[in-house]
This record gives sequence, C-alpha cells and structure tokens, in this order.
Amino acid sequence: MEYVQDFRWKKGMKAEELALGLSKVGFQSVNLGRACEIMKKMKRDGAKIYLTFTSNMVTSGLRGFFAQLIELGMVDIIVTTVGGLEEDIMRAHGEKFSLGSFRADDVALHERGMNRVGNILITDESYARFEDIMSQMLKKIYEKNRRMTSPEFFREVGLMLKDKNSILYQAARKNVPIFCPAITDGALGFHLFMFQEKHPDFIIDSVREFKDIVTFTGQDDRKGIISLGGGVSKHYAILSTLISGGMDYAVYMTTASSYSGSMSGATTDEAKSWGKIKDDADAVTVIGDVSITFPLVMCRVLEELSKEKVIKGGKN
Amino acid sequence: MEYVQDFRWKKGMKAEELALGLSKVGFQSVNLGRACEIMKKMKRDGAKIYLTFTSNMVTSGLRGFFAQLIELGMVDIIVTTVGGLEEDIMRAHGEKFSLGSFRADDVALHERGMNRVGNILITDESYARFEDIMSQMLKKIYEKNRRMTSPEFFREVGLMLKDKNSILYQAARKNVPIFCPAITDGALGFHLFMFQEKHPDFIIDSVREFKDIVTFTGQDDRKGIISLGGGVSKHYAILSTLISGGMDYAVYMTTASSYSGSMSGATTDEAKSWGKIKDDADAVTVIGDVSITFPLVMCRVLEELSKEKVIKGGKN
Amino acid sequence: MEYVQDFRWKKGMKAEELALGLSKVGFQSVNLGRACEIMKKMKRDGAKIYLTFTSNMVTSGLRGFFAQLIELGMVDIIVTTVGGLEEDIMRAHGEKFSLGSFRADDVALHERGMNRVGNILITDESYARFEDIMSQMLKKIYEKNRRMTSPEFFREVGLMLKDKNSILYQAARKNVPIFCPAITDGALGFHLFMFQEKHPDFIIDSVREFKDIVTFTGQDDRKGIISLGGGVSKHYAILSTLISGGMDYAVYMTTASSYSGSMSGATTDEAKSWGKIKDDADAVTVIGDVSITFPLVMCRVLEELSKEKVIKGGKN
Amino acid sequence: MEYVQDFRWKKGMKAEELALGLSKVGFQSVNLGRACEIMKKMKRDGAKIYLTFTSNMVTSGLRGFFAQLIELGMVDIIVTTVGGLEEDIMRAHGEKFSLGSFRADDVALHERGMNRVGNILITDESYARFEDIMSQMLKKIYEKNRRMTSPEFFREVGLMLKDKNSILYQAARKNVPIFCPAITDGALGFHLFMFQEKHPDFIIDSVREFKDIVTFTGQDDRKGIISLGGGVSKHYAILSTLISGGMDYAVYMTTASSYSGSMSGATTDEAKSWGKIKDDADAVTVIGDVSITFPLVMCRVLEELSKEKVIKGGKN
Repeated sequence: MEYVQDFRWKKGMKAEELALGLSKVGFQSVNLGRACEIMKKMKRDGAKIYLTFTSNMVTSGLRGFFAQLIELGMVDIIVTTVGGLEEDIMRAHGEKFSLGSFRADDVALHERGMNRVGNILITDESYARFEDIMSQMLKKIYEKNRRMTSPEFFREVGLMLKDKNSILYQAARKNVPIFCPAITDGALGFHLFMFQEKHPDFIIDSVREFKDIVTFTGQDDRKGIISLGGGVSKHYAILSTLISGGMDYAVYMTTASSYSGSMSGATTDEAKSWGKIKDDADAVTVIGDVSITFPLVMCRVLEELSKEKVIKGGKN
Repeated sequence: MEYVQDFRWKKGMKAEELALGLSKVGFQSVNLGRACEIMKKMKRDGAKIYLTFTSNMVTSGLRGFFAQLIELGMVDIIVTTVGGLEEDIMRAHGEKFSLGSFRADDVALHERGMNRVGNILITDESYARFEDIMSQMLKKIYEKNRRMTSPEFFREVGLMLKDKNSILYQAARKNVPIFCPAITDGALGFHLFMFQEKHPDFIIDSVREFKDIVTFTGQDDRKGIISLGGGVSKHYAILSTLISGGMDYAVYMTTASSYSGSMSGATTDEAKSWGKIKDDADAVTVIGDVSITFPLVMCRVLEELSKEKVIKGGKN
Repeated sequence: MEYVQDFRWKKGMKAEELALGLSKVGFQSVNLGRACEIMKKMKRDGAKIYLTFTSNMVTSGLRGFFAQLIELGMVDIIVTTVGGLEEDIMRAHGEKFSLGSFRADDVALHERGMNRVGNILITDESYARFEDIMSQMLKKIYEKNRRMTSPEFFREVGLMLKDKNSILYQAARKNVPIFCPAITDGALGFHLFMFQEKHPDFIIDSVREFKDIVTFTGQDDRKGIISLGGGVSKHYAILSTLISGGMDYAVYMTTASSYSGSMSGATTDEAKSWGKIKDDADAVTVIGDVSITFPLVMCRVLEELSKEKVIKGGKN
Repeated sequence: MEYVQDFRWKKGMKAEELALGLSKVGFQSVNLGRACEIMKKMKRDGAKIYLTFTSNMVTSGLRGFFAQLIELGMVDIIVTTVGGLEEDIMRAHGEKFSLGSFRADDVALHERGMNRVGNILITDESYARFEDIMSQMLKKIYEKNRRMTSPEFFREVGLMLKDKNSILYQAARKNVPIFCPAITDGALGFHLFMFQEKHPDFIIDSVREFKDIVTFTGQDDRKGIISLGGGVSKHYAILSTLISGGMDYAVYMTTASSYSGSMSGATTDEAKSWGKIKDDADAVTVIGDVSITFPLVMCRVLEELSKEKVIKGGKN
C-alpha cells in the first residue's frame, strides 16, 4: 500500500527531486510518477519506442526537446502531423515564433500577417521563406526518388538541415523514421500538389507507408509508446502494432477527456479492448497540457537513466 | 441589445421550440442559437457546405443523421477519418454496435472480442466480415482505376452499398465527395497494403487528393463549414479554402478547449488569424459533446429551412 | 443488449422525440437518456427530490425553468449558492441581464459598469437597486426573527416577491426550502454584515441549518438528487443524506471532469464509496454544459410524467 | 517581443532551471512562467497574500506544501472548504491516506470502509477517530468562546495540534486566519450540530466572519491572490476585496474552463469586469491539475525569493 506524502520544497532542489516528490502527492501527479516508471522500464527493457505528437507541440519549444530525445536515443520511431514538421524546417532556417496571447484580436493579427496557434505567433514571412526552401528541396528529392513514403521524404529533408535542435535533422542522423500519415495537411500540401502538376509521376505512397510502419516491429520486439496529444498520430501508431501483438508499455499524455468517445481522449484502457495495448501492459494516461507535464516527467526519466548509464549526454 | 430570457417547458413542445427557447438562455445555449442562424444562412446563401467529423461520431447513431443531411442536400463535401467510414460499411451490411459503459473492464472486453469506443462496442466479428466485404470491393475498384484519390475510392464503395442510412451510399448518390486524408489509418489500411502487395500499381494519390479539395471551390464561391470534433478532418477542410479566400461561414462544435493550442480546440477566431475563415465571416464555436449538441441544433435548422422550402423531405 | 440506433430528423418533430432519439446515439447522449429514466423513476417513486445548482445557472434563463419545476412539484428541496438568489430577486424586480461575449474586453466592461458572467452581463445599477430592495427586506425579516437559517431567511424573501418565474417566489409558495450554506458569499454578504453592525443579535445560524437539512429526510424516505454543476451545493446535499442511508437516485450534470479529484468533477460512482449514494442506486453522470443538457432532458421527463398524470401543468 | 525557445534537458538540472526553461515553451507553460513573475512581485511588493484552495488539494500531499508556505511567510490569509481542514486534523493525528485508482470499484470500496477522492482513499476509521478528536476539541473551544467565526474556531484547533506539516498548526503559529464560509459542509457539520443540540448558545457567526474578511485589508493595502481550484473559496476571497479596490495581483490555477460561465472556470479577466481584480493588475489564469502545476511554479518562486533574501528557510 502506498500513501500520500506531504510535498515540501527544499532549497536548491533538483528537477528530479521535484518530480519524485510529486509522485506521491495524488491526482495527476501520481499518474505522472507512474509515467516516469513506465518510460524508464521501456527504455531499460530495450523496447522500440514510438513517440507521437501533434503539430502544435512543435510550434512550441518542445521542438528542441524532441530533437534532444532523438539525439539521446530515447526514440526509435515518430508519428506526427505535417504542420509541426514544416515549422521544424522554418526554425532550422532561423525563423522565430513569438509569444502572444490566447485572447488576441485575430482579425488584427491577420492584417499584420501573424498566424496564431494558441499563444504562439508565426509570420506570413516564415511561410513565404518555407515555400522557397521547400521548392528547392523538392527538386533534389525528386531526382533521387519519385514514388516514396513520408518517412523517406522527411529523411531526405533532414539530411539537408543543420540544426541540432531540429527534429528532422536528428531523426535523419539517428535513422529514426518519421511517419506522417496526412502529409498534405499543411502548407506542404500546396507545394506537393504544385510540384506534382509538373511532375505527374511524383507520388507519396501512403499505402506502402502503412506497410512500413506495420512491419517496423515484429511479434518478438518489445514495444513502448509515448503518445502526446491525440489525433491521427496517436491512432496510427497504436494501430500499427495491432498484428504484432500490441504495445508492451504505453504512456498517453493529453488534455482530452474520454467522455465523448474521441480518439484524443481515448485512454490506455480503451486501447486494451482493441489489443492495441497488451492486456498486461504497463500503461497510464496523464491528463494535462503536455507543454508542462512532458518536460517535467521526462527530465526525471533522463536523469535516472543517465545515472544508470542507460543513456549518455545532457551536458549541453 | 439582447437579453437573457427565462426558459419554460410547454406541454407538447416541438424540438424547434426547445432549441429556439435555449437560444436566449446563456452560455453555450446562446452559441448553439448562433450556430443555428449561421447554418441557415450558409444554406440560404447557396454556400458550398463542408462537413467534417471524427470517426467516433460515425460509430454513434449520428451516422444515420449525417446520411440524412446528405440526402436532404445540406452537405456538399465531407472530410473525415477512415475508421468511421469502415463502420458505415459494416452497418450498411447489417452489423450492429452495442451500448456499453465508459467504465467497462477492457481486458475482459478484449477476451470477449469486443472493441470499445467510449460507451459503444464493436465485435471482432464485425471487423472480420468487413475484411471479406472489402476484399471483394477492392478487386472491383481496382479493375476500374489503379491510381485514385480517397474520394474516388469511397465513391466506388458507396455505389456498391444499399442502405439509406449509410453516409457512403447517400454521398455516392448525391455526388458529395468524401475526403479522407489519412485513408490507411484504420482496418482498411491493412487491407489496402495487402492488396498493394499483389498489385504494386495500386496507388492512393494523396497529393492529387489535396489538389482536388483545394480546387473544389473557387474565389467566387460562398463557402461554409460545419466542423464536428477536431483533428485532421477539421484542419484539412479549413486549410483547403485558404487560397480561395477562406470560409464565409463557420460553425465549430467540439469538446476540446483552446488552452493547449491544439487544432481540436482551436476556435473560429484563431482560424481568422490564418485567413482560413474570412475576417468578417459569421462564425461560432460551440463547446460540448456533439452527440447532443449537433442533432439539437440541426433539427431546428432543418425545420426552419423546410418551412422556407429551402430543403425538402423529413417525412420518414 | 441495447444497440446504437441511427438518429433521423422528422418534420415537426417533438422535443420529446428528439430526446428519445438521442438516447440510443452513443456517448453523452446515452447518459442523457439514462438521466431521463432515473428522473422519471425518482418522481414516480415518490422520492424526495433534491435539486442543486450553481449561481451562474440562475444568471442564465434556467432561472425561469427552475421556478417552473418547483411550481410543477418536481423539486422538494434546493441547495444553491447566494449569487443566483440575489439575481433571482433582481429579475423579480424587473432587472434585465444582457447577452454579451465570452471574449469581451473586461476592462472596458468595468468602465461601463457591466459585470460579466461568461457571456451574460449584469449592470452595476441592478446591484444598486438590489441593495435598496434588500435593505427594506432585511428590516421586515428581522422583525419576525433574529436568529434564523438561510432557508428561513429566503422563505421570507420569497413571500415578498411576485413573479411566477422566480425561484424564491415559487419555493415560498410550495414550501420548498432553499439551503444556502455560504449565504454571505455575494452582495448579500455586505448587506447582512452592515445590518448586523446595527443589530448585533441578528444571526444566521448555519449550524442549525445543517441539522435541518440532515433531518429533512429520514431512513424511510426515498431520496433522489439532481445535481447541476459542482461546488458546495452539490456536496452539502449528498452529505446531508449520509446518515439516513444516502440517495436512492442520482443524476449529476456537470462540465467538470474527475481527473483532478475535485468535488465538481466527482462522479456518482465516487459518491457510492462514501455512502452518499446507495450502492444499488440508479445513478448517472452527464458531462456537458447544463444550459443545453438540462432543459433537453427535463422537457422529456416532464412530457412523459405529464402523460402519466404524475405531474400537471405546462399549459403556459 | 518574446520568442519561443527550445527546451533542453541538462544533466543535474535544478527544479528552478526546469521551470525557467518552460516559461518560453508556449501554451500553459508560458502562463506558468507569468504566474511565477506575478507571485514574486506580490511578495516583494509586501502585498497581503490570499491563498485559496479546495478540499481535495488537502487530501493530497499539497497539504504539507501549504503548511510550508505559511511557515515561510508566503501567505497572509487562507480561504478554503471544511473537508480539507478535517483531513489536515486527521493527518496531524497520524492518519494516513492511501493511493488508489480513479477507476476503482466504488461499491467494493464502500464495503471495505474506504472513501474515495479521485485516486486517494480515506478510511472510515480515520473519520471515526476524527469524531473523537473533535468531540474533545469542541468542549475546550466552547469554554473559551460561544459565538465565533470559523477563523476563530480553526485558530483554536490549530493551537491544539503539533505537526509542522499541518496547515492549521502553522496558521495558528503565524497568525494566518483560515476562513471557511461553509463550515458545516463536511463531517464537522455533524459534530457541530450535535454539539449545538446540547449547547444552544453555540454559534458560528458567518455574518461577522464576512465582515472580518472584508476588513482584513483596506484601500491602502496591496493585495494579491493565489487561487487554486474554484468554488466558494475562490469567490469569497475575491469578493472580499471588492470595496477596498480589488486585487493588485492575481494568479488563478484551475482545471475548469470558462465556457459554461462557472465560477470555477471564471478567468482573471472576468474578475476585472467586476472590479474584484484591478483593471491594471498583473493577472494570469493557468489551466491544469494543481497537483502538478502549483508545486512546479511555486518551487521556482521560493528559490528565487530565497536568493533575494525575501524569504528564509527551505533547509529541511
């Protein structure tokens, strides 16, 4: 039997101690503590780790953190949506996103060429420069391959970037495939279709892409998932392991609740009914804004795995 | 200036009167009233109406309602995810989904071959029969076309169905295209990739699909959106009108809040900063479970448009 | 086994048919259907019905509906907070509340003497007139009684009002006590303390008030609760029946989720662990904005009980 | 203009560095960063600091943290509900609360005498012992005073406790009044009414209590509020400063959203329309489970104020 323990601040407290202290506080703090244990286990156990996130998280400063996790070897495969990857490319080319307000006057922002994502603003200029960059990249990629999957496409992009805080850059270096099942659902969609107009044999093969994720791991592989937010990224990842037996470890972190039956709010329990997560898997759902909960728990995971020499790095 | 008005029940009250009464109650009731006005306007105005929804809504009994809306001519184009379309096909072949509990024992459900979506259960048998159906359909579709978009694919499917409550059936009859930007993200994904293994020239062309939605309406068309839930369906639809000037009318209905910057929680205001919804568009966001809010408001819309002879039907 | 049923609109549809149709749709619609069954049962069964709501619901047009429910004999006892009762008095004296926006400029509103509750606005003038009204009422009440509970206090207020849409008016006529465990938590608090300055023997006896609610029903009474929103009103009501065996029927309707352990989000299940709701009670929690969900389900309840002659009225 | 900054983990990272890093990440992380700045300002500025919280937070391990904040001089006045104060007394007498599951079988828990608050369990025995403790305390308190306010009552209780992790103990030592506007809304309610049965002149004077909080600060005092969760505690505190000009600083931390017009979800902006928070006040609302967000931000506040010698301590 575990008991609630009073939390106390200690001068000079480490991030790890803070997260450890919270694990006995109650409510979502306890779930965060469980998430820590499960993430450590999946790594120690040599599981293939699936990381999924939504685009807005890449708009945020979690982008550099995701890149660092790839660099540290904490992630084996990524599933996400295209908007974030576009922004990763912009940031890698020096674009900056500014901090605004959730209650901004959106018509005024539009007139000033500012596009809002919650309390973050991206300028029209950033998108214009992205168009130039992508136009050149597309030509080079097409020279190599004309029928490809999104992981193949984004690997080529990553190889053309030079920014240690870039997800695509680190993923290309570390051979971490980035699946993007709805690759046209962003500014890239416009660039792809205009490119295809001129080059009709240019194809994104989403059917083979699904085959590739399904066969990424087999029955004998241990599999773990860290799913941040919901949507297609989350579902595509858990679905992909269905025929190889489902996830052995699962951490869901989301703001969505389960009462309306949405995928974003679907719990790790619900996934067990489908066999997308194993019956006896270590699994937890943590409710809350990932911009706070994920760095808090993951810093503790990294700290403890670093002490155990399971991962190296963190000296930057 | 509009004032709060006391709501009162009246014996034998019509659904329309109920919804009208709520429009002066306050909080989300008022937003629901605004949603009604906007939806009536977009139809009267001859706008092209985009309807987007998430898969779980098709798992629910909203499926038949969506089909009816297509039948009544309330919808010109649909964007959704694949899970719901699979279930529409199952239901059209006589499968039934049972009502369970949000707090079910998911491991026990798994052992009994029951897959849970909130408080709705789908059996493994339904999925097995879906596999047989799809296997035959794929052969026929391939004979006609080897490189297609998802609206083309689902139109063929719809033509093979015979169920007035089916979304795909009604959409095929009414020439309403159904876009599905992540077509492999469901059981269909497995069937597609196995089919492609044998027929490598079978291609789902998601790049051309994006072109098709972008060119579905032009600068001169009035455009309205009814977006239920969030995710890729919602974003794909609003994005698609960006270069033709954005939506003139927009109703978002969702359970998600905007505080974490997610697409699911993004408001119609946020979309204005991007130009996905026009600056001066009539637009409202209604927070709440769509399984309740949408039929409530849409029945009033239909009733009033029916009186105005803008739509016909509703006698079944 | 119950199955999902496709919902369809029918021309001229009754509110009752709409609500009935929703009961097989899935997600919160199904919970709403269960809420209907439970509320009908509690009334037919002769249970004492506890209604609790938060102040903001009285700010809204639900105020007149609550008054009507009392008039129809659907409610035996009310627990609420004081803000709403103040507003009921204002409205009974002709004050009007206007409909505004959730995204209003609050500093501008403040300068214009407008106080915001979500998207509803109350003027400073309404509060000023309330002060005059209350000042006279307090003198009269004090002449009758100097140490009283809040239900005694509000009964006297109700007897001085003349508005069929007033909660206090109908409650006084129908002998429905209105408990208000935090009676000073509103503008009334200022008036009460200034009155007590001049009349130190004026006492609100909250300890006896608790006794009165605890003894309102006994072990042998059937008890049902309809709890709208959370907070002290909800907890005070369910706590009060703890020693007489807990509620036999319970419907919670709230926007709050259970993940942070709050009372507002606490489910009917959680209440069973405490014995505040009986182990075998018919109970359901419906998530959603009460300004929509409550009138929708309650109109069906009233319609059906009216047909059964369990209640009379509804001809206004 | 502030920009999004990539977050990165650093080996051996301090809690303060983590929280600082998050302040440029985006979404609620940024709000958390603002909350930090505002809380530091209110303390440096010598503002009277109001802390409000809901009972469930005292059920959790935040209890010891609240006690520590009082000990450190970070809090001048508290408003809360009674359930948490009961549990503070239990814990001070050695009772332990165990960690369970949000999805527990509540009927089974009830049979085992376990009462659930989210994922925390309190035994019937703890409540039985509380009854004995309170019975003795009540006699002693009554000997001193027969008509009292809740802060007076709880001060006496605090003086009888000996536990540095107890809120009541620290508050009594530091002369921090604890207001509890609904003092009977818990197990204490039963003990109070039974005591009053024997001692009819025993009175909790809630009207004078309101006077006391209203006069706790004057027009000339700087005032700041840290409001955790919603409900009566939150409203009572902000209301109390209305006539002395409203709060100069405000941090709201809650899980509730504003879309249904509830007090729990009401933002600091909404409070400005009422004058409960000054027009030009530094104010922020942070959405998320307080069991995570509050310790994370407050540890940074303490660390930085400690370096500035504004507070002492933290060596335990």
